[in-house]
Amino acid sequence: MSKAMELAQHLEKLKINNMYKDDFYWTWDKTDDEIDAVFTVADALRDLRERNISTKIFDSGLGISIFRDNSTRTRFSFASACNLLGLAVQDLDEKKSQIAHGETVRETANMVSFMADVIGIRDDMFIGEGHKYQKTFMDAVKEGYYDGILEQQPTLVNLQCDVDHPTQAMADMLHVIHYFGGVENLKGKKVAMSWAYSPSYGKPLSVPQGIVGLFTRFGMDVVLAHPEGYEIMPEVEEIAKKNAAASGGSFSKTNSMAEAFKDADIVYPKSWAPFAAMEERTKLYAAGDQKGIDELEKKLLAQNAEHKDWACTEEMMKLTRDGKALYMHCLPADITGLSCKEGEVDNSVFDRYLVPLYKEASYKPYIIAAMIFLAKVKDPVKALMDLDAKGEARKEF
Amino acid sequence: MSKAMELAQHLEKLKINNMYKDDFYWTWDKTDDEIDAVFTVADALRDLRERNISTKIFDSGLGISIFRDNSTRTRFSFASACNLLGLAVQDLDEKKSQIAHGETVRETANMVSFMADVIGIRDDMFIGEGHKYQKTFMDAVKEGYYDGILEQQPTLVNLQCDVDHPTQAMADMLHVIHYFGGVENLKGKKVAMSWAYSPSYGKPLSVPQGIVGLFTRFGMDVVLAHPEGYEIMPEVEEIAKKNAAASGGSFSKTNSMAEAFKDADIVYPKSWAPFAAMEERTKLYAAGDQKGIDELEKKLLAQNAEHKDWACTEEMMKLTRDGKALYMHCLPADITGLSCKEGEVDNSVFDRYLVPLYKEASYKPYIIAAMIFLAKVKDPVKALMDLDAKGEARKEF
Amino acid sequence: MSKAMELAQHLEKLKINNMYKDDFYWTWDKTDDEIDAVFTVADALRDLRERNISTKIFDSGLGISIFRDNSTRTRFSFASACNLLGLAVQDLDEKKSQIAHGETVRETANMVSFMADVIGIRDDMFIGEGHKYQKTFMDAVKEGYYDGILEQQPTLVNLQCDVDHPTQAMADMLHVIHYFGGVENLKGKKVAMSWAYSPSYGKPLSVPQGIVGLFTRFGMDVVLAHPEGYEIMPEVEEIAKKNAAASGGSFSKTNSMAEAFKDADIVYPKSWAPFAAMEERTKLYAAGDQKGIDELEKKLLAQNAEHKDWACTEEMMKLTRDGKALYMHCLPADITGLSCKEGEVDNSVFDRYLVPLYKEASYKPYIIAAMIFLAKVKDPVKALMDLDAKGEARKEF
Repeated sequence: MSKAMELAQHLEKLKINNMYKDDFYWTWDKTDDEIDAVFTVADALRDLRERNISTKIFDSGLGISIFRDNSTRTRFSFASACNLLGLAVQDLDEKKSQIAHGETVRETANMVSFMADVIGIRDDMFIGEGHKYQKTFMDAVKEGYYDGILEQQPTLVNLQCDVDHPTQAMADMLHVIHYFGGVENLKGKKVAMSWAYSPSYGKPLSVPQGIVGLFTRFGMDVVLAHPEGYEIMPEVEEIAKKNAAASGGSFSKTNSMAEAFKDADIVYPKSWAPFAAMEERTKLYAAGDQKGIDELEKKLLAQNAEHKDWACTEEMMKLTRDGKALYMHCLPADITGLSCKEGEVDNSVFDRYLVPLYKEASYKPYIIAAMIFLAKVKDPVKALMDLDAKGEARKEF
Repeated sequence: MSKAMELAQHLEKLKINNMYKDDFYWTWDKTDDEIDAVFTVADALRDLRERNISTKIFDSGLGISIFRDNSTRTRFSFASACNLLGLAVQDLDEKKSQIAHGETVRETANMVSFMADVIGIRDDMFIGEGHKYQKTFMDAVKEGYYDGILEQQPTLVNLQCDVDHPTQAMADMLHVIHYFGGVENLKGKKVAMSWAYSPSYGKPLSVPQGIVGLFTRFGMDVVLAHPEGYEIMPEVEEIAKKNAAASGGSFSKTNSMAEAFKDADIVYPKSWAPFAAMEERTKLYAAGDQKGIDELEKKLLAQNAEHKDWACTEEMMKLTRDGKALYMHCLPADITGLSCKEGEVDNSVFDRYLVPLYKEASYKPYIIAAMIFLAKVKDPVKALMDLDAKGEARKEF
Repeated sequence: MSKAMELAQHLEKLKINNMYKDDFYWTWDKTDDEIDAVFTVADALRDLRERNISTKIFDSGLGISIFRDNSTRTRFSFASACNLLGLAVQDLDEKKSQIAHGETVRETANMVSFMADVIGIRDDMFIGEGHKYQKTFMDAVKEGYYDGILEQQPTLVNLQCDVDHPTQAMADMLHVIHYFGGVENLKGKKVAMSWAYSPSYGKPLSVPQGIVGLFTRFGMDVVLAHPEGYEIMPEVEEIAKKNAAASGGSFSKTNSMAEAFKDADIVYPKSWAPFAAMEERTKLYAAGDQKGIDELEKKLLAQNAEHKDWACTEEMMKLTRDGKALYMHCLPADITGLSCKEGEVDNSVFDRYLVPLYKEASYKPYIIAAMIFLAKVKDPVKALMDLDAKGEARKEF
């Protein structure tokens, strides 16, 4: 039996009725079975692709992408996922668009969704804004569907908001699952999600939040490490705590990178902005106070610079389990001596993990495709089995 | 029998032989049967889509879009229409292109049309320029086809020029037809195509021109209202008059918004620039006289500001038939208190018509697809019937 | 028998086993049989297309385009070629991407190639850089494929580098082959690849290099003409010499345009930058010396201006074989009196050759498609025959 067929059989055991036509905002909205389903379908689609079997479930249709912040990895992952399933991508470039000053999100949402089967949105710049934008957008298209404006109900894939980065966290997790040989081997593994110094300012919190919000569901000991002042959103910490309690793992915090790295099986050192400062920035932004924003930035850069010792050096890596923890990053990383003078990680450490890092990233298209697949296909088990049985070549000859 | 099948039978009765391989510049180039055919095919394609039946008539091929002005609605409508029929969109972004200073339109036209089945062009900025550009472009590709440079003859969909905006006007009209329960119910209805104040300057005339040029063909009483100095192109007024005479309706003009709104069944209040000033601007532009353009703009903004009372207020709406005329707009509108301090329409009026407004916009992809369908398919009746009979799923599973 | 079928039979006689999964950097990397195969497949695909037969060999998949310099012709040619074979294009717009300062080409290459079947890259600005970038990129994706990061091995189509412009040179050559009625008629024909004056500065050398590197393989007498100081890369001259010796033609140089044009059957007058100056510019660029670059530019423009007599005038054309040499250009040309005051070619000459010039350009999509086809299809003979035999309509109805 093919791997895809086996995975379809596993999928059959999961309760996933609510995924059909549903949006994907945050991993913690989803049940364990639903999370499992995304991993399962992602692996199945990858297996089909590896065997040159077509996974087109659409003969036409559009995936709309809206990147309110720059993106390479996620942009190409979304494009790949859409193409894998038979959708064409139409990007909303707000600069080239006639989006009137004051045009409502509701209007834009309907105007770009005429033939949209899926909407992918990245909006991660301002605390309290990104998720709100996605929600307003999706409420509008849902209404549009019920009002007969749209012939199909588009569903959302959150390509990063201010709260979660589910396609990243799930690609990361699928990488971990395969790296350690299965989800059953994860119990008790120690994960260090750690802040690290970067010369740049104000990176989103959604990656660390996504990681602690998801990784705590697998019975692992997740440690969140950062200097004082670099707290993440308290709501997400609450979720991490509950997850850990339910899964038999733990969630703890520390202000010492070394403590987090000690005997860790997995390390994820990455810069992010302090939550409180991001909240302040959002307020200044809303008030149009550019001078305030500039001053805040200066203050934050100064604050940042006090923590240059938060770096994933060779020394630091030696503290991890047998000195061989799995190093993870969402990329691009700030690499000391390569992309900056002092950054998140030593060049030698980063270089040693290049292949696993790229492999980690390579799961994202399949995670996105799985999210779309589960939202658009009524009977995903049958669909996977049929695709495999039919075995139409993706590339002929 | 399905709705699409019924519509195909209606299509069979129409004389539409000349549409095959023909371009779509202006609605008044087309016979009544041809206009009817576009509505009929648009409705049929929408019915097929609603029943998840594939309408792909191309297995590959390109739709080339050229937006010489910003666009969201039309851009996504064109992309949706192409996708619906199986074409991929390739956008000519003149900023990213190596279009040499002085490169002829003839050369560009051939260079971007290698695999083009359809060309969509928006060029609405300068009176006397937009249509000319489209014509030059299409003459060039036609020649290119006959000279064996291109393997297929691309056809044009005018996505807005300086004279007409046929995809807008026809989407608007299809909305009206369905709103009033059929074309047979339109005779004697009063339509107010009215100028309205907007703080922005120089909006194209193609929307009001497109509306009076098309709506007068359905036996309605079309009133064009604007302050003195905001005349539209006299050629288009002539067409409106002829249309009205032929259809048993009327075309009249007034300098009073209230008079136009009085007992109107449909109101379309929208800002546009004065024709004479636009002609002047074109001359200044041709002469490269930026100072002259800036001065003209100042003058026009001042002139504009004298007519802030031309607004679709609740008061004004009360004048219409039972106070319930159908409010229409091509979007985005300048909404008083929402997108600007003083604009074309009261927020409460606009808000009450949100669903019909979005529905109105939702016809555009189907209108564009119908235009392409009729230009590319030799036997559109058979094609619709075959698509319906085959019933291939657009989305499998 | 169809033309495509005949061409497939010709293809069967060629030794082309090494083309499968191979990259296309430079024409001189390829054997005569391989060059022949590209022409043969290009003609076959064009014949199928002319007969409305689908040439889709992919049901999904992506062609990634990276234009590090502006492009219209090549951009639309690449898009057309991908579409012809069933691939969607995803463009890497470095401005919209989150390509970190210092991010390695290796990382970018893997991150954009998740579902890529083919990569098209234009990078022609700096001597010593363009090819290096392409090589680094392709080495990275090859590694990525072997490391299991990518499920398919993408192959390269060089869309212009600092050394060669193979899709241009081969489209040009296919035009010549058809113009003269077959490759067997080319022996002894005189080709003048000549420098010509343009008011713009620093055009790439890859076109003249591509032409002398390819045209010398067909037994023709290729003359490279330019003012002193406008030498091309010596390595390419060496290749041209070897080619000429092997093919029974000749390769010579002159500093007189008239001498080159004398009795020429083909003339290709085009501006390019002097090689030595381009090398200097690359060094200044690497050192970040903008002032140095500006000074160099001034010097070069002054040097350029001394050679305004290097123009393809009517006078000059009279020197050619019966005054009727085939005039060629990669477009856009700098046309005296049309796009500039003094340029590469007289307007009357250019205008007389418009149709052949556009025809010349129209081969490029097929050349690119043939390169992709031969790199992705294991048995191209069978593939062509099957496509023809199946005869699926590209456009139904």
